[in-house]
Parts: sequence; structure tokens; C-alpha cells
Amino acid sequence: MKTTILINCPDQSGIICSVTGFIQAKGGNVIYLDQHVDKQANIFFMRLETDFNGSDQFSATTFKEEFLSSIAAPYKMECEIYIDTVVPKMALFVSKYNHCLYDILSRYKSGELHVEIPFIISNHEDLRYIANQFDIPFYHIPISKENKSAAEDEQLKLLKEHQVDFFVLARYMQIVSEKIISHYPNKIINIHHSFLPAFAGAKPYHAAFKRGVKIIGATSHYVTEALDAGPIIEQDVATVSHSHSIKDFIAKGRDLEKIVLSRAVKLHLQRKTMVYNNKTVIFA
Amino acid sequence: MKTTILINCPDQSGIICSVTGFIQAKGGNVIYLDQHVDKQANIFFMRLETDFNGSDQFSATTFKEEFLSSIAAPYKMECEIYIDTVVPKMALFVSKYNHCLYDILSRYKSGELHVEIPFIISNHEDLRYIANQFDIPFYHIPISKENKSAAEDEQLKLLKEHQVDFFVLARYMQIVSEKIISHYPNKIINIHHSFLPAFAGAKPYHAAFKRGVKIIGATSHYVTEALDAGPIIEQDVATVSHSHSIKDFIAKGRDLEKIVLSRAVKLHLQRKTMVYNNKTVIFA
Amino acid sequence: MKTTILINCPDQSGIICSVTGFIQAKGGNVIYLDQHVDKQANIFFMRLETDFNGSDQFSATTFKEEFLSSIAAPYKMECEIYIDTVVPKMALFVSKYNHCLYDILSRYKSGELHVEIPFIISNHEDLRYIANQFDIPFYHIPISKENKSAAEDEQLKLLKEHQVDFFVLARYMQIVSEKIISHYPNKIINIHHSFLPAFAGAKPYHAAFKRGVKIIGATSHYVTEALDAGPIIEQDVATVSHSHSIKDFIAKGRDLEKIVLSRAVKLHLQRKTMVYNNKTVIFA
Amino acid sequence: MKTTILINCPDQSGIICSVTGFIQAKGGNVIYLDQHVDKQANIFFMRLETDFNGSDQFSATTFKEEFLSSIAAPYKMECEIYIDTVVPKMALFVSKYNHCLYDILSRYKSGELHVEIPFIISNHEDLRYIANQFDIPFYHIPISKENKSAAEDEQLKLLKEHQVDFFVLARYMQIVSEKIISHYPNKIINIHHSFLPAFAGAKPYHAAFKRGVKIIGATSHYVTEALDAGPIIEQDVATVSHSHSIKDFIAKGRDLEKIVLSRAVKLHLQRKTMVYNNKTVIFA
Repeated sequence: MKTTILINCPDQSGIICSVTGFIQAKGGNVIYLDQHVDKQANIFFMRLETDFNGSDQFSATTFKEEFLSSIAAPYKMECEIYIDTVVPKMALFVSKYNHCLYDILSRYKSGELHVEIPFIISNHEDLRYIANQFDIPFYHIPISKENKSAAEDEQLKLLKEHQVDFFVLARYMQIVSEKIISHYPNKIINIHHSFLPAFAGAKPYHAAFKRGVKIIGATSHYVTEALDAGPIIEQDVATVSHSHSIKDFIAKGRDLEKIVLSRAVKLHLQRKTMVYNNKTVIFA
Repeated sequence: MKTTILINCPDQSGIICSVTGFIQAKGGNVIYLDQHVDKQANIFFMRLETDFNGSDQFSATTFKEEFLSSIAAPYKMECEIYIDTVVPKMALFVSKYNHCLYDILSRYKSGELHVEIPFIISNHEDLRYIANQFDIPFYHIPISKENKSAAEDEQLKLLKEHQVDFFVLARYMQIVSEKIISHYPNKIINIHHSFLPAFAGAKPYHAAFKRGVKIIGATSHYVTEALDAGPIIEQDVATVSHSHSIKDFIAKGRDLEKIVLSRAVKLHLQRKTMVYNNKTVIFA
Repeated sequence: MKTTILINCPDQSGIICSVTGFIQAKGGNVIYLDQHVDKQANIFFMRLETDFNGSDQFSATTFKEEFLSSIAAPYKMECEIYIDTVVPKMALFVSKYNHCLYDILSRYKSGELHVEIPFIISNHEDLRYIANQFDIPFYHIPISKENKSAAEDEQLKLLKEHQVDFFVLARYMQIVSEKIISHYPNKIINIHHSFLPAFAGAKPYHAAFKRGVKIIGATSHYVTEALDAGPIIEQDVATVSHSHSIKDFIAKGRDLEKIVLSRAVKLHLQRKTMVYNNKTVIFA
Repeated sequence: MKTTILINCPDQSGIICSVTGFIQAKGGNVIYLDQHVDKQANIFFMRLETDFNGSDQFSATTFKEEFLSSIAAPYKMECEIYIDTVVPKMALFVSKYNHCLYDILSRYKSGELHVEIPFIISNHEDLRYIANQFDIPFYHIPISKENKSAAEDEQLKLLKEHQVDFFVLARYMQIVSEKIISHYPNKIINIHHSFLPAFAGAKPYHAAFKRGVKIIGATSHYVTEALDAGPIIEQDVATVSHSHSIKDFIAKGRDLEKIVLSRAVKLHLQRKTMVYNNKTVIFA
């Protein structure tokens, strides 16, 4: 059985030795270890992949309990332990743009993403045909100024009923309010169509065109209450020139957006992301 | 004799035919032509390289006069005509960072830049040794709040005396005031150590580190009165991660800065840049 | 009505003026012009987009005839004239990998590609489900050493019956023989999963891994008889490290392949590619 | 006192715990750890930075001896232990191109490289002026077919006399023979002006131009007997188009070459490179 362990705690001497020694004592083998120390914040971060295959008596529950009491508690660790036989559940939120949805669903269908997709939510009917193409349940929950709170209740109900672990705003053109965010801290992945922090907010390609930039970008980040200001997971860029119109920016941007979002989703699924101080540690 | 002609005018039918026909009639051959139409602004832009080698009677002065009256005037063109035997004069402004200065001077010394460098101005003594290494006159003009206006007068005097065509702020850590800018519109090239418009102003690497970006950049632009907001000539980026400290950002950034600035200087020297609406057209 | 004109001919003085003058005389407006001279080969290339909207008497057939006799013939031009109301027909060849197929079909379905897709051919049944998802006819034509010639006859028959203009090998794992290539010179677009000319032939990711490269690539090119040696349309790369397995190379490569192939298809559709001396001119 | 430890050995359970435990027992603190397992080759790699500042009794010699007997021997490790107060000695070999030399020397002069440069060797006199600019001894050792062996003896003598740790071929246009390589295994850094393995050997830009590639590259690698086939340290690329001449390729390439070579030199100096199976592990 494989487990992935994510740790952070105040930095001090001896952590790596203690953790790896504990795993070894329990019959596990460390097959990957990456660590990082933020020297300004004095925080230690570590990600381990361990293999207990040789250990036929391994109980994930027992291991977790013992790890928490013997290691995590004395070092004041926050830690997460994932068992790779548990498949996470990911919901998708979309509006009218289809490129990110198509990209995620085709990867999903190809077995590229180790995930279940219980449903797609949209405030528009436009992309139902894609949900149908891929046999994923599609819930149309219209949103207006007046019904926003009720609509979000409906969204929350679906998320809870299906025990969704995290969800992805795949060019969802509504602002998700604190009511939902508070239930899913660092569990909502957004794609913003600019190289943040440049051009936060609406119409970034128009703003980039007006400014005359020579490079455009896309940014995937965890959603926080501050608009387009959450911890950045992944960014990428493409060159543009005076010869490109806003329409060209948008077309080039589509390719960036879908690739950057899918990379972020994969990193999240592989448990390679940790968040602190509104920043991420992204393990290799 | 080779000439480079830069044109912009209100867009209308027939411009290319008229211009190329005129050049041909004068015994010239168009060896390069690139044009662009900004459809929003309805402006036509064109860059031509022409060769009058076969035409032994060619007079640059006569050609210019005739071009202005026969072509530029009726089409309401702004145009610039450069003769490639005239070597432009470029001054350098620096403070304490040496990487951009070293990069420009080593290219200059290698014959990579078709330019004269009459002098280097600095508000500090630190880099005089490099000027000495490369045998370029170095003027130390200290700047304080109190003497800024007088110091700029001194700078202007040098620029005028040496008939400088344009100058480069090679990590010059002072704001150039309107007094100077007004004499050199689109003739002052700056390098800013961020991917503008993100992180304009001071300490961009610190700001980028704090924001947790995954990509840093550098931007070369013409200097206008609005700080770090002039027309962008060239940008480039490099990836960073949580494992990089601010010091690492700065070290990575140095390589970006010097390459981006040198590319911008080359584009300017090759007459491949045109400015309008606070943006640039960069010809291929 | 909009037309796109592609020209190449021996370089000489006066071509641009003659062509633009002719178009203007016929009531057309040049809305885009890009030209290139290969000085080694002494060949002139030009791409024009023209608009005859103001000219209600415009006949494409008449224009073509007159252009050929008045302009193309005296300059010894090869030229192609495309009317933008004619939608080209593109077939797709696939085997078992689905990422390029999904990418092209989702762009097609979104209206991103100005093209008709009459059918998909595959030597395997595996991807029929995707053809079904997108309602495109799917022909399964198995290929073995023994039946290859007959199978290609069947492919040719389909291509001819549907009047296919060009076709795309979207990770089609068979070598297309001269019998087919000779009917579609510079009309077959392949994606090779390496940065050509490095790692031509089979298993490029394995070869790249073995060599320990730090960057992998993908290359889209026109198919010629020389394997993986046709004119390159588009290339892109991604960084890798020692920490990536061959499986990681392949996963990273999938994203490169689909983006690079789609860019090449778009360039072809926009008539921005010209081929000569086994190289391409790619207009902006 | 800071030390950097590089380890490789057959993979087995418990290595990380043993090594970190040993360091801790000796009063050291692990301030950085990165490890990698090549699963095909079953080799474990690790790089540690350790700090013995708190430990006033620390003796590097004693530590090394104890580490070798207590840890390295039982695990059959190859290991290297570097003390950061020891400044390595790097020689430079050049011919006629100056861009890499200028780039390295200006970084050196700026304090960017933690290294001593005892001398520059060249088979031509052309770049002596740069050695003079930077006050570095310059040895002109001409090389012809006839005198090659004697010339290399002279080179070796200089390398040995100055106790050079490693040296850099900064566009040195001679093949270094086994006689020298055998004394400096994985200690000679070359820059090749192509994206290896494409275009190995002479005139890679000409070959790239002929092939019509859309991206060019540069590769820095350790020199082995097989020409341009040694372990790759660093690569980077730049886009080109049909509009670029061979001269443009060369100019673009110069910037790539100098940046890629300097990155490789830095990685080597930071002890972030390990070589095995003709490949490198490059630590973060």
C-alpha cells in the first residue's frame, strides 16, 4: 500500500531523521522525499511517498494514529496522510467557455486523472451537451443578483451530498462567495486568464492588449475571499505581438488556460501542493 | 546605399503600391517590407529596407525631400528615413548594478551593436572601473533631492554636447524627470525588473516573492512620465519556485534583465520599433 | 469577399508594387501583406489578404484568370488563391492515442477551426467511441504487412470520394507510403513526439530519457517520403529533469503534441504556410 | 561551518534516516536535503547541505573520516564532501568567440561566482585583450595537427601547477583528447551551440538553418571522449523563423550559449550536479 504524507511544522533539527525512522520502524520504505524550509517564516515542509507493500500487517488507520501521536504531536506538525487506493471526488463548475471542460474531461476519460467526477454545475445550459458527450451529470443552477445565496445553498448541498473533496472553476464566470469558500479552504481551484498579479479581475485580455504587453499568461490558484489573489499553483505564458488582436489573445490564451489548469489539477491530485502564508509549496 | 524607412499614417487603400512604386521609380529596390494595420485605431504602419546600390546618382537628401512631398504629405504620413552609414550615438546611465552595463559594453566591443557610446553617466562612482576597462568616458553626477534639477541640467548638457541620439537606463536607480524626457520622446530605453504591469515601482522581486508567483520577468520600455508605464519594447520570463529565495529571484532576474535590455537596444538600433498610443509596433 | 493569395517566384524588383497595384485596380483592398525573400535561394514569397467587399461586381473566377495571366505569368509565379467562403475538408488518421484527436475535435466542435471533418480513419477500433461522441464517421481500416497496399487503396478511395483537401496524422502509428503522399504533397500534417531532428523514428521519449536531455519537444511537419524529415511547420518544448520517468516524459509530451499539432493545423487552415526546399515559410 | 555532501549508492531502505541521524549526532543541522532514486538503475542519490555552526568542536577532516567509515562504507556509497570555505579553481579555455568569456568574467568580477580563475588558455591571441581587461593571466598555446600532443602536455602542466579543480571550454574550438579528459572526469564543462543530440559536431547553426527548424538551442555538458555526447547539465532554446538568416541564428545563439554555460558553471560550483550512466542528476 502506498501513502503520501504532507507535513509542515516549525523548523528544528532532527525532523527528517525522526519521520523516516518512524516509517522504517513501521515496515515502510520511503520511495520519495522532498523537503523545503522557508527560512523567513521558519517553517519546515516535507512530502513523502512511502510503500508498505512488504508489510502485510499494515493498517492505514493504526499508522495514522501512531504517526499523529508519536511524531506529529511532539513536532507540532500539521500533517495530511493519503492512501492511494482512495479515489478523490472532484466537481466541475463551468459557464459558457468549453475549452477547459473539454480538456479536463478528455484527460479524465483517458485515465490520465486519478479522480471521480460526480457532476458538473453550471449557471448556463450551454455546455450540457459536453456533459452528455461524457456521461457526467449536469446541474443547471442559474445565478442572478437576487438568487445568489439560494443558488449557492443548492451548490453546497450537491457538494456535500456527493462528498466532493475539491472542485474546479473551469472558466466559471461567477464569484464564489465566502459561504462556499469557508467549507473548502484550499480545495477550490480556479484558472484566471492572465499572468497574475497583472490584470486581475474582469477582461484581462482586453487590458493586456491595451497595455501593449509582449507576453500573456494564465494562472491557476486556490480560491480565497480576495478576488484573484489566492495562492498560485501554476502559471505559464505565451508571446504575443502588435500583430495580434484581442481575439488572437483570447485564442492563444485558451491553450494556456487549459494546460495550466490541468497541470494544477494534477498537482493537487498528486498531493504535491501545500499552502501557507497565501503561497504554495509545489513539490517536484 | 541602404535606407530604412518607417511610416505611419491613417489607413487607406493604395499606400503600399504608392510607396513601393515611388522607391522603384527612384532606382531603389525594396529588400524588406513589413506592414501592420491597427484596425481599432485605423492606423497603417510600414517598415521598408531599400537598396539604392545600383543607382549611382542617389542622393539621400534629395530622396528624402521628394519622398516627403510626393508621398508623405498626401497620405499624411509621419515618417523617418535612416541612412545606414550614419552611426547613432547612445549614452548609458547606470548606478551600482553592473550586469546590464557589462552586457552592453561587451556586445559593443564585439561589434554586435552598430552604435557609438560617447559616455556613461552615473550617480555613483561604483562602476567607473568598468568604464575604464572598456575605455569609455565616465561622468559621475551625484543626485540628491536637493540637487536633482541641477544634476539633470548637467546630464542634458552632456547629452546635447555629444549629440546623443538616444540613451539607455541600464539599471539606473533614479527617476528621470520630464525635463529630460521631453527632449528625448521614445528615445530613452529602460529595463524594469518585473513582468510589467505586475510589480511596477520599487523592489519588484520582493513583491513577486511575497505574492508567490511561479514566473518572474523583465520588461524593457520607452520612458514616459508615467513611472514604468511607457510603451513596452520587449519582455521575457523565467520560472521560479517556492525553493527560490529573494536572492535567487534577483540572480535569475539579472540574466533576464540583461538579455531583455540588449534585445530592446538592438531593436531600437535596427529601427524596428514604432510607438503609438503608448504601445509599440515591433517589426520582424 | 475576402481572398488569401500566396505567391512565390524568382526575386526581382517591382513585385510588390505590381501585385498591390493590380489588386487595387480590380477594386480590392490589401488588408494584410507579409513578404519574405530567401536570399540564398533568391526566391520571393508573399502572402496577401484582400477584401473586395466594396466591389460588388467581383468574380473570383475572373480575378484568378486575370491575375494568372497579367501578374503570375510574367513573374513566373507559383500562386494559390483562396476564397474564404470555401470551407476546406480535413480528414483525421488515428491509432490508439486519443489526446490529439480529442483536442482537434473539441476545437472543431467549438467553432475554432474553419473546416469540415468528413471522417476519421483508424487502423484500430479503440477510438471509435470518440468519433461517436462527436458524431463523426469512423472507418476502421486494419493494416498489416500483408494488406498494406490494399488498405491504402481503401484510404485513398475515401479521401477522393469525400474530396478531402488535406489530412492530419493525429498520432497515427503507421508509415504512410508514397502511393498516398504523391496525391497529397504538402497536404499531410504529422505530429512527431520529439524535437526533430533529434530522436526521429520510433520511441523518441525512450531515446530522450536515455540521453538525459533536459528539454523534450514535439514537431509538426508535412509528410514526405523521408521519415520524420518533412518541412517543419511548428515546434515547441518543455523542460524535464532527472526526476521524470519515461512515463512522465510521455505525459508531458502529450500536452506538447496536442498543442503543437493544433497550431500547425490552424496555420495550414489560415493559409499561412508555404513550402520550398523542404522548409516552410510561416507567415505571421 | 557549512558542508555539502553528495551521495550515491545502491538503493535500499533506511539510507536517509541513517545519514541524517549521523549528521545530527555529530552536532550538525541538515538545512537542505534533496534525494532521487533512479528506479531503472536502482541507484539512490542525495545532496545535503549541513551546518555545523553550533558545533564549535567541528573538524572537517574527522567528520569526513567518520562519515566514510560509519555510513559510506556499509551502504557502498560514493560520496563527496565539500567545505564551503574552500574556493575551487576554474580555468577557462577559449578560441576566438568572446561572448561566453565576457559573460563568465563579468559574473566573476561581480562576485557572482564563488571561484578563483587562475588563468585563461587559448589557441589564438584574439581574446588576450579581454584577459587584460580583467587582469587574468592568458596563455597562448597554438594547436596544429603536428603539435597537438605537445600542446596538450603544456595545457596539462598549467592545469596541474595551478591545482585547477575543473575547467570550462568557453567556445574553445578544439577537441580535447583523452589524454586530458582522463585527468578530469566530469570536470570539463563544454557549451555546444545546438540542442543536443540534434546537430552534434561542426556548424550546428548552418545545419539547423538547412533543416528549417523553428527552435534553436544550446547545451552545456561534461566532456567525455565521445564528441558532444557527454552528460547534459543544462539546455535552453529560442524560437526562430524563416525570416532569420544563419547570421541571425548565430546572434540569437550567442545569448543562449552564454546563459546556458553560466548556469552550468554555477550548478557545478554549487555542487548540484551528479553524473551516472552518462546522465546527470541536477539538484534543485
